[in-house]
Amino acid sequence: SYPQKNAEILSSQYGINLFLAGLLLMFAWAVHAVGIRKQDLLSYLITIMLIQLLWMLWYISRSYSQRRLIQEKDTHAGARWLKCGITLFAVITLILDSFKIGYFIGFSNCLSATEGIFPVTHAMHTLLQVYFLWCHAKDIIQSFKTLERFGVIHSVFTNLLLWTNGVLTESKHQLNEHKERLITLGFGNITIVLDDHAPQCNCTTTLCSIFSQGMYYLYPFNIEYHILASTMLYVLWKNIGRKVEHHHQHKILFKFHGITVGTIFGLIVLISTIAVVVVYLIQIGRSKIKSELALTMFYLYAISVLTLMCAAGIVALLIYRLEERSMDNSKNPARKLDGDLLVGTASGSWLLSWGSILAIICAQAHPKYTWYNLPYSILVIIEKYIQNLFIIESIHREQETVNDDIKTLRIVTVSSGSTLSLTPSHKEIYNGAADMDNGKFPYMFNGNIYMRERSGGDSSDEVKSQASSPVSHSTSDFSLYSQNSVNNKRRILKNIAAFLFLCNLSLWIPPAFGCRPEYDNGLEEIVFGFEPWIIVVNLAMPFSIFYRMHSAASLFEVNCKT
Amino acid sequence: SYPQKNAEILSSQYGINLFLAGLLLMFAWAVHAVGIRKQDLLSYLITIMLIQLLWMLWYISRSYSQRRLIQEKDTHAGARWLKCGITLFAVITLILDSFKIGYFIGFSNCLSATEGIFPVTHAMHTLLQVYFLWCHAKDIIQSFKTLERFGVIHSVFTNLLLWTNGVLTESKHQLNEHKERLITLGFGNITIVLDDHAPQCNCTTTLCSIFSQGMYYLYPFNIEYHILASTMLYVLWKNIGRKVEHHHQHKILFKFHGITVGTIFGLIVLISTIAVVVVYLIQIGRSKIKSELALTMFYLYAISVLTLMCAAGIVALLIYRLEERSMDNSKNPARKLDGDLLVGTASGSWLLSWGSILAIICAQAHPKYTWYNLPYSILVIIEKYIQNLFIIESIHREQETVNDDIKTLRIVTVSSGSTLSLTPSHKEIYNGAADMDNGKFPYMFNGNIYMRERSGGDSSDEVKSQASSPVSHSTSDFSLYSQNSVNNKRRILKNIAAFLFLCNLSLWIPPAFGCRPEYDNGLEEIVFGFEPWIIVVNLAMPFSIFYRMHSAASLFEVNCKT
Repeated sequence: SYPQKNAEILSSQYGINLFLAGLLLMFAWAVHAVGIRKQDLLSYLITIMLIQLLWMLWYISRSYSQRRLIQEKDTHAGARWLKCGITLFAVITLILDSFKIGYFIGFSNCLSATEGIFPVTHAMHTLLQVYFLWCHAKDIIQSFKTLERFGVIHSVFTNLLLWTNGVLTESKHQLNEHKERLITLGFGNITIVLDDHAPQCNCTTTLCSIFSQGMYYLYPFNIEYHILASTMLYVLWKNIGRKVEHHHQHKILFKFHGITVGTIFGLIVLISTIAVVVVYLIQIGRSKIKSELALTMFYLYAISVLTLMCAAGIVALLIYRLEERSMDNSKNPARKLDGDLLVGTASGSWLLSWGSILAIICAQAHPKYTWYNLPYSILVIIEKYIQNLFIIESIHREQETVNDDIKTLRIVTVSSGSTLSLTPSHKEIYNGAADMDNGKFPYMFNGNIYMRERSGGDSSDEVKSQASSPVSHSTSDFSLYSQNSVNNKRRILKNIAAFLFLCNLSLWIPPAFGCRPEYDNGLEEIVFGFEPWIIVVNLAMPFSIFYRMHSAASLFEVNCKT
Repeated sequence: SYPQKNAEILSSQYGINLFLAGLLLMFAWAVHAVGIRKQDLLSYLITIMLIQLLWMLWYISRSYSQRRLIQEKDTHAGARWLKCGITLFAVITLILDSFKIGYFIGFSNCLSATEGIFPVTHAMHTLLQVYFLWCHAKDIIQSFKTLERFGVIHSVFTNLLLWTNGVLTESKHQLNEHKERLITLGFGNITIVLDDHAPQCNCTTTLCSIFSQGMYYLYPFNIEYHILASTMLYVLWKNIGRKVEHHHQHKILFKFHGITVGTIFGLIVLISTIAVVVVYLIQIGRSKIKSELALTMFYLYAISVLTLMCAAGIVALLIYRLEERSMDNSKNPARKLDGDLLVGTASGSWLLSWGSILAIICAQAHPKYTWYNLPYSILVIIEKYIQNLFIIESIHREQETVNDDIKTLRIVTVSSGSTLSLTPSHKEIYNGAADMDNGKFPYMFNGNIYMRERSGGDSSDEVKSQASSPVSHSTSDFSLYSQNSVNNKRRILKNIAAFLFLCNLSLWIPPAFGCRPEYDNGLEEIVFGFEPWIIVVNLAMPFSIFYRMHSAASLFEVNCKT
């Protein structure tokens, strides 16, 4: 009886306040506020994680006891590959937790107990949450709406807070490394205070330094894990009480076949990015000349990759303009969130790029390597602009397979002259299609070549089973021509999606593992001042990093669907 | 042929980049970045305003030449009272522009030409934009989609940038005043640098000091003008290419009748708020004791007002729980924006409140007056929580009038026993209703008292024209009872809405005109540090201020609709 809109506002406002209180606590800790210690922050995080744990246990046990009830599922939410991705990140997060536990054991003399309790709780939380997402990410909750809304929104913002906490730790670490480099390079004019929070006692085991250094290579995965979990839970929340139209949903399968070119180019980019990052991290901060060389190398490399990505995106958009297809405007929370997140998180890196552009325009002195920053920044803006257009158009296009089925049905209907007899045979085709292999099937019957490709893994052998029905010449000729052209276009699009997928994965690596040309080139710091620019970078960078991972996930989906 | 979703992304990404570039420019100016002067920022703003001017001229002339084409209108967008509100703010903005021009003339020797061109352009921009919003705010643009999308989104973000610019100027002014007070109170431990940007020459006219002081009393209106214009333009943008279902739309009229109690209480709050603000601004910063007294007065007053508002909101929500009515879930961009803005902008003040709560918990020393801060901050959170629930439920409830019409039709149908003859008479009733006066009409016919109130200004005299038809006893008895109860509930709701409307308008005044207890009580500054807290306040305060104006506007609508 309680209106759904109100339950939504009631729970979302609770979640926002939970988040804001945590955010303020983190902010207070980060600015060394009087009277706020790390254990206060950790206690808060432990508490909300435990609440989420209890809620998840309640939900799982309840849905286990009521499993005979047929529950509606949102077929768009919680795709299999998303679950696999999150599981991978969760496993690395568990390794991080064990590192933290080991670190705590080593320094247990001088660390508060919360620093030990936190990773233990976090590991339990991670295990149960991954199980929860595997089993319930597609649920459309209809009963006990208000209580379940509170639980889900609590989980969403708990994960967001854990994400923020990870981002904050990572940012502090990066900032310290940057300051150490500045000391090495002899910039004495900036007041440098290292913000270490290092324990005040000696480690009792020999593994401490491995733990403390290893952690920072694992943090990027932990950060991605929490933001992905948060988006999946948000979709679950948006789905509560929703009425879904039961429309035909194709199983989306990833097929490697036919995307060799895109994959090879993408892998080349991936490998060379890793090489560039390793060289960059070794060279930067060693000496002034080495730093400048590393920066020049990074910019030139990034400019060439971004140019390729822009070109690929433009080609894909042009193909879409040639090939008219209706858009699917049905309600779909998962897709809407994907689109909003792409534009929203791209804003983070756009902000940084505009900052760089402004700095280059306004700076008084221009060392040679800083000029590369200008095309780099402009290309970052353009590339994300084009890529967002491509991804959002792709996920909104109606799936080819559906159209094909209709087309096939129509052709067959015209040719056989009898509609009534078709329904069972068409169903048969559809069910049988999943066993068939991929590729083109040229069939000869009635003297006509009839060629079709399996689109998205379905409806391929309709002709085979309808071979006995007479097909008129004109229909099949048209079909041959248009199918061939569609095939080529589709192959190009699939390759572009695969290439862009690997490129985005590659471009996730440099910022996630500490390549920060925004810090190292020094130009922005001189123009804006050290502190203001640090604040801008630390606020915008997490979104910029998440953009790459999120667009890679979206492009994977595009690749499967095309 | 170009897909609408793509046109939307194309234009919104353009708008975001326009905004981010401007934002960075403002940020650079605010942090005194090397090489960025005020005229750079002003040139940017002048350029984008001129582009918007040209676009508006093109749009107006085009729609003038094509006015014979019937254009669809969104009846929910651009309500009359919203237009009146924006016109009022625009007039004050024009006065502000004239002050700026006068100030420029006085200091023309040492100010750059852009400081004179800016207010002139801004005045032209304001005049044309208000005309544009009056004539075209309800438009649903269908032709030339992409170009018009770009124009509208350009206008949205131009206004947002002008809003940000206003907010920045205002914040700088407030911060300077705060620093001056700190100097008076003898806080030497905080490094105080006044950020004046005062001209380097003497004024040539005698009015300069009036202009420069008067400006800051007009800025709050200028700020509200731009954000309101921005939201109206955003709704226009969301409406582009939309297909509206033509459903019956009642003209919403504001009626003063029946809300005397709420209005009187609201006016008492309004007047006393103005008195409190005047006393506060005179007393604060004079001496330590006077400051503490002013703060105590402010907190006690705000606590009592907020308690009343909470109580009113809870009563309203309870009435809604008693009176079941279906929710209107139809698509409506204007309403969706209203809801999102309420929750989004409330987050700003929630952040500040959580900051205060944290500061009180963590502070080492607690002067007596700081304790009042705790209930005040908690009440701010709760009040906005409840008020948002009330407003969002109100704007989502189906309008009473529609239901009434259906009910009437049903009753009459049952009683007359002939459905076919009713259609013309019902239409007659409906058309005739507008001339009738308000109030209750007890009609005696067939021995039954039949009482109805005019709901929302329509359907009142259906009984009169149907007096000849026989009505069964049971139907009219039920009608009498339920209508009376509904009337009472509705009257209470209308009074609550009126009271909350005036309260929100009142609570807009203190922060807009420089009552900043978050600065003046000093507790948060000690805990978080001066700089970090200043940053938080300056980021969150503009949203907090806008929340009050926006919720007042929404409550006005609620009052009219109930």
